[in-house]
Amino acid sequence: MSESFGSRLGRAIAERSHLCVGIDPHPGLLAGWGLPDDADGLRRFGTVMLEAAVDRAAAIKPQVALYERHGSAGFAALEELLARARELGVLSVADAKRGDIGSTMAGYGSAWLSDDSPLRSDSVTVSPYLGVGALAPAFDLARETGRGLFVLALTSNPDGARVQHAGGADSAAKRIVEDVAAANLAAGGSGLGYAGLVVGATVGGDAQRLGIDLAAGAPPLLTPGYGAQGATGEDLRRDLGHVWDQVLVPASRSLAANGPDGVVAAVTAAAGDLG
Amino acid sequence: MSESFGSRLGRAIAERSHLCVGIDPHPGLLAGWGLPDDADGLRRFGTVMLEAAVDRAAAIKPQVALYERHGSAGFAALEELLARARELGVLSVADAKRGDIGSTMAGYGSAWLSDDSPLRSDSVTVSPYLGVGALAPAFDLARETGRGLFVLALTSNPDGARVQHAGGADSAAKRIVEDVAAANLAAGGSGLGYAGLVVGATVGGDAQRLGIDLAAGAPPLLTPGYGAQGATGEDLRRDLGHVWDQVLVPASRSLAANGPDGVVAAVTAAAGDLG
Repeated sequence: MSESFGSRLGRAIAERSHLCVGIDPHPGLLAGWGLPDDADGLRRFGTVMLEAAVDRAAAIKPQVALYERHGSAGFAALEELLARARELGVLSVADAKRGDIGSTMAGYGSAWLSDDSPLRSDSVTVSPYLGVGALAPAFDLARETGRGLFVLALTSNPDGARVQHAGGADSAAKRIVEDVAAANLAAGGSGLGYAGLVVGATVGGDAQRLGIDLAAGAPPLLTPGYGAQGATGEDLRRDLGHVWDQVLVPASRSLAANGPDGVVAAVTAAAGDLG
Repeated sequence: MSESFGSRLGRAIAERSHLCVGIDPHPGLLAGWGLPDDADGLRRFGTVMLEAAVDRAAAIKPQVALYERHGSAGFAALEELLARARELGVLSVADAKRGDIGSTMAGYGSAWLSDDSPLRSDSVTVSPYLGVGALAPAFDLARETGRGLFVLALTSNPDGARVQHAGGADSAAKRIVEDVAAANLAAGGSGLGYAGLVVGATVGGDAQRLGIDLAAGAPPLLTPGYGAQGATGEDLRRDLGHVWDQVLVPASRSLAANGPDGVVAAVTAAAGDLG
């Protein structure tokens, strides 16, 4: 039986920082780095970002959409990045937001969470519009292989509330958080759970208003919104201080915008801010 | 300006049938066909399924998860399938259920809906948990390039209701259907819209109870549940008769289970049932 993802992530946070280095090869960032927007550019961008993360960040988070733009060649570059992260002992969160049902969901689980997949990652983000229960094949595989998931729950983008807050006191988001808590409690163990949540860095108020308990089952919390998107380390500690041990803070553009020569300093500063 | 996806799909349905041939290379089906579960097996499975669809089905629907299992090699097989479908004049629905926000969503749009992507498809399925508004970059690109989308809305899997029905009379699903209708109405034109919905073949009763109007804006309706999952052509015409012109009926396992030598006959029969 492998060590659980929650245990591995908790140790990485304690030893390094709460920072998760997002690897988001947007066309504009590649151009700013003087790199071509092709598989070779993705590869070179990813290598620099990954090396900056070693010993400073708890994990990396490649944005799969930006690799997918280049089809199979983009996925080959992503496979190489994930393999190199494994060699360097850096945990990975494949930001893929996959979601389906039944044997199709098992296919996504197999792609990202099985021991023999070329895309295997330590964890993957998933989308629960078909119900958290529908994601069970990926939950089961993650638990078995010592990997993890982050389920989209409560985000801060302006369009998100229309779906996530539907139902008010019995909202879609609340149901999802409860289902993820139940999965972690059923798995037992202490420390962080293997099943995490994606919750915006600034949604603390929404969570309270919607009666959502982010501590139940100790899900790791991936909290976009830091850095380029406006939230500071202080904001995060204020809104999420009561669950701070669970928090993994992605930053991407605010790091990469410093260019290939400035990214190590930027990662070092962010890791200090999120120590 | 390209002909719209709704116009192209409406003609394909009228000329051929309401059938959409799902191409789902599950491990078990590949084994049943005597094919290896690798990129070569995916390629051979897809070729037979695609050729059976020509002149009989309105579209094909490859299940991306089952290609993704094999990483970049799987995506290369999918690229070849999509290219061959374009050559043969068969419309494609990439069943990817992608969903994100902002420039990341633009990345997914670029992957599946731009003229120069190796994965370009006539349409792609998307997931709205971050809000239909968050999918705007893909909506915009689809409209510009004469392509389409199918937004997950109301599904029949047992776990789906927990999220989709949250809110009752003002449910998450209802809000999504309204947002998609508004997008089609804003685009103008007659006939089918470019923005479709995924609604289970058997959800007619739920739609009525939740006050959901599937006709508004004439979204194409991708309706899983036919064949192996239990719904008959008669069921579909009864529950969705009032929007029958909008309906595109996927079938996959019930066709492929007949083996490579039986699939043409099975597609012919299903196309007759869904004429």
